[in-house]
Amino acid sequence: MTQDATEDRVLAAVRERRELVNDAIDEDLPMAEPERLYEATRYLLDAGGKRLRPTAALLAAESLADVAPLSTDYRAFPSLSGETFDLMRAAVSVEVIQSFTLIHDDIMDEDDLRRGVPAVHREYDTETAILAGDTLYAKAFELLSDTGADPAGGLEAVNLLASTCTRICEGQSLDVDFEGRDDVSPEEYLQMVELKTAVLYGASAAIPAVLMGADDYVVDALYQYGVDSGRAFQIQDDVLDLTVPSEKLGKQRGSDLVEDKETLITLHARQQGVDVDGLVSADTPAEATEEAIEEAVAALEEAGSIDYAREKATELTERSKERLSVLPDNEARSLLRDLADYLVSRTY
Amino acid sequence: MTQDATEDRVLAAVRERRELVNDAIDEDLPMAEPERLYEATRYLLDAGGKRLRPTAALLAAESLADVAPLSTDYRAFPSLSGETFDLMRAAVSVEVIQSFTLIHDDIMDEDDLRRGVPAVHREYDTETAILAGDTLYAKAFELLSDTGADPAGGLEAVNLLASTCTRICEGQSLDVDFEGRDDVSPEEYLQMVELKTAVLYGASAAIPAVLMGADDYVVDALYQYGVDSGRAFQIQDDVLDLTVPSEKLGKQRGSDLVEDKETLITLHARQQGVDVDGLVSADTPAEATEEAIEEAVAALEEAGSIDYAREKATELTERSKERLSVLPDNEARSLLRDLADYLVSRTY
Repeated sequence: MTQDATEDRVLAAVRERRELVNDAIDEDLPMAEPERLYEATRYLLDAGGKRLRPTAALLAAESLADVAPLSTDYRAFPSLSGETFDLMRAAVSVEVIQSFTLIHDDIMDEDDLRRGVPAVHREYDTETAILAGDTLYAKAFELLSDTGADPAGGLEAVNLLASTCTRICEGQSLDVDFEGRDDVSPEEYLQMVELKTAVLYGASAAIPAVLMGADDYVVDALYQYGVDSGRAFQIQDDVLDLTVPSEKLGKQRGSDLVEDKETLITLHARQQGVDVDGLVSADTPAEATEEAIEEAVAALEEAGSIDYAREKATELTERSKERLSVLPDNEARSLLRDLADYLVSRTY
Repeated sequence: MTQDATEDRVLAAVRERRELVNDAIDEDLPMAEPERLYEATRYLLDAGGKRLRPTAALLAAESLADVAPLSTDYRAFPSLSGETFDLMRAAVSVEVIQSFTLIHDDIMDEDDLRRGVPAVHREYDTETAILAGDTLYAKAFELLSDTGADPAGGLEAVNLLASTCTRICEGQSLDVDFEGRDDVSPEEYLQMVELKTAVLYGASAAIPAVLMGADDYVVDALYQYGVDSGRAFQIQDDVLDLTVPSEKLGKQRGSDLVEDKETLITLHARQQGVDVDGLVSADTPAEATEEAIEEAVAALEEAGSIDYAREKATELTERSKERLSVLPDNEARSLLRDLADYLVSRTY
């Protein structure tokens, strides 16, 4: 297939699953009292999102069960021993964790926009945003501990999600820490990205295998598939932050740069002798003009830093796809490969 | 036994278990990287605390297993089917959840002191405090999903802890909401207290029974024991906030009153026609003089509001003790009864 055809195919797969995941979010996270709190828990989830992590979870399960994509009820999905469980609920749980981390990160990073709408702490207030995140955190574990899967697998899946959350916190802590430093090495940066972002992709792909009773080597391979494609995704995210217009991005373009967040791009540029700190003089994304961002991006392009990041993302993507050799050769596996490609080929 | 002798006995039981719980916290929450984050996760845990929730958990298990208190290794504790599991780890998990909620609550309530030391968001900063709480949240589920108990019980325990966390968030949300209202009914207040505070006592007493494979009616009774004594505890906490000197309290005395937090005491006083809003004119605890607090307390005493709260606490305590009839009649059960009494008889 041509690249366009591949992209169309994976976009269709993501879109079809997104609808199902959105319906499942409605069912598994119903409105409750106190109303304002529950509205806040749903606010970011309802603002959009491609549901890439749940999609990875659903595809991993379909490949492992060796069933045709979308042929099998996600709410009564067969484990490897034939007993059914609620795979969709597990998929929702990782999206719920993702939503919780975004809400808390936006408070910490003082980001005002997310997915084109005000961040939860702006739409509501910081107290409500902290609590909405905490509530989603609890809901994720409520959901994952109630899938009807074999209890041994269920408990292991909970342990995996919990240790993943620990790592996400460690990664966010490093990220905050890096803001005050200009001597971060590319290795430190990549480790931070792995912890902050990639492990949740890893957990998303691995949790279904754990719940289905797969062998450890399968679980590990799926986890690494997710981690590598997740790292690629985050590096690409940093590329997009610089190269996509604000309207399309759903937040101020170049905000990482204005807020002195180191990325693989700025770290590479420093090595090339670029005065990264002097690229944009504005202190807040709101103060930065489109022109100032444009000039900064041009300097980073010229130093080869944006291409460097793109190449690193491609390398990780190739490695992630190789991990999938543990799965049966089927259409769902092929879609997982395409998904990994899509994560770095997407333009927004 | 006299009341003093009873109190000595339960204090000794709490003290002995506190030492063991503190050692277990050292073992189960070891220092890791990033150092600053892990220091922040331990900061409040290490600042003190009586470990009442873990103590309730350990005593509930000892009574249910019908073993003499402290006769049995908490790290290899027998379930009802004879298999052993790490009871201590489950006990630590509820303390870790308690610590997480305090850290986040102090951010939301803008409380500067906790357990006689600066709140985590003051000692560190808000970002670190949010993350430290989030890390403890994850750690609690890592620990509870790794006790070695029968997986079915383990998964049910995780589900109970998760739904408890959801309720705690709902309770904190109501508490924040009540700050802006002066028409809160005593029933609403008691429901808020149940959600915000009491359910974690309930979970502490019930989780060991779940892990040990006890019947549902035993689990339910232990949960209700914890909820009722936890509600009594919180009402007593509100009494102590007004009646115990700041040094002994570890935070500014009367801070609830200054911050216009409704309690059962202020709600009763309103019903008695007391101008609660006019009792203290200071806007922050730091601005309020000891004399102003003293006068406010005298007015509440005169209205009978403090006695009213004390009586409500006593009533709930009596009910909580009746729930224990499902347990074997043994020394651990007797200590659980004493613990419920202690929660309302303590003076700080």
